[in-house]
Amino acid sequence: MPLWKIYHPVGAYSAEDKQAISEALSDVYARNMPRFYVGVVFQEVSAENFYIGGKSHPNFVRIWVDHIARTFPSDEVKVRFFKKMNEIFEPFIVARGYQWELHVDETPFDLWTIQGYFPPREGTEDEKRWTAENRASPRTHP
Amino acid sequence: MPLWKIYHPVGAYSAEDKQAISEALSDVYARNMPRFYVGVVFQEVSAENFYIGGKSHPNFVRIWVDHIARTFPSDEVKVRFFKKMNEIFEPFIVARGYQWELHVDETPFDLWTIQGYFPPREGTEDEKRWTAENRASPRTHP
Amino acid sequence: MPLWKIYHPVGAYSAEDKQAISEALSDVYARNMPRFYVGVVFQEVSAENFYIGGKSHPNFVRIWVDHIARTFPSDEVKVRFFKKMNEIFEPFIVARGYQWELHVDETPFDLWTIQGYFPPREGTEDEKRWTAENRASPRTHP
Repeated sequence: MPLWKIYHPVGAYSAEDKQAISEALSDVYARNMPRFYVGVVFQEVSAENFYIGGKSHPNFVRIWVDHIARTFPSDEVKVRFFKKMNEIFEPFIVARGYQWELHVDETPFDLWTIQGYFPPREGTEDEKRWTAENRASPRTHP
Repeated sequence: MPLWKIYHPVGAYSAEDKQAISEALSDVYARNMPRFYVGVVFQEVSAENFYIGGKSHPNFVRIWVDHIARTFPSDEVKVRFFKKMNEIFEPFIVARGYQWELHVDETPFDLWTIQGYFPPREGTEDEKRWTAENRASPRTHP
Repeated sequence: MPLWKIYHPVGAYSAEDKQAISEALSDVYARNMPRFYVGVVFQEVSAENFYIGGKSHPNFVRIWVDHIARTFPSDEVKVRFFKKMNEIFEPFIVARGYQWELHVDETPFDLWTIQGYFPPREGTEDEKRWTAENRASPRTHP
């Protein structure tokens, strides 16, 4: 959780760009969950394979995200989250002349494992240890 | 919304085929939402990377779709939608000897932005403007 | 249903490995649904395109799954399923020094077609025939 999938034009981002985007996203989530929960996969999509409204689009960044560990507790938090995403992506998308679309799905917490372990619930001792050690380890509580 | 992801055999579709599929899909959705909402990503998957029932399958088209802007209002509309999809894909899949599977998920409307804007609700003045101009723009209503 | 998507390091798996994984997964599902329901797509992701916690990760297998035909009936069945997944992937992931994460989403049964047919409900005569013949065919019941 989250899994970010970023479809982008061929050659749009350097390895440094991709690391910077991933770091910025991880910074946001790491405020209240283990940092290693944040997975980001980048994938180049050529104009021939990407269509918006029926037309090939050479400059579009299409992002989909699965949220697993947390659901948004309120509309206010949702709006704040997407404002933050606008800030993060502005230099990588808008400033470079790309267009973009982003959507998030929320998937079931209890259908999720990391290194074969069911992740601990928010706020538990196990989650605190996972956060502190920044890795998954056997659960000490059910 | 929608995001269409089409996994297909290597070399199955020309750029013209892909544009034609995307146009046909966009025509369906554009009857009641902005045309630029329709995103389609094509991806070649080699037989070595695609398995059905545990066996490599060289001739399968596997499609997954996320619907965001609209949910189906009734079973009748669902059935009509999938009938239409059968018509659209018949010449590109069945007539070419491919097999196929398609599934749609519905994801949260309020976890979605285009060009950084939350899209307007169905039937609003903002949505009418987005449809007429075929592009996202700042919302004039909350 | 299910659709398995397996992102893995470049060169991690041979064709034989991929077939073995797909067969093992199909064996699990085929206990109570048609075997051909099980689709698996493998995709190589280079370290430059894969990030965990903001850092490029060269040895991570990230799996996402959409379940369509069935939802888990109880917590016990969920836990048993993920234990079985740990067994299946142990030789392909843990034993080879990879790390991994897996999550499953459940998507709507009635937004799904195979060869253009809505799959039959669990336990019906139609489903029994699809299982026995291991292929989709016209429904004989509504």
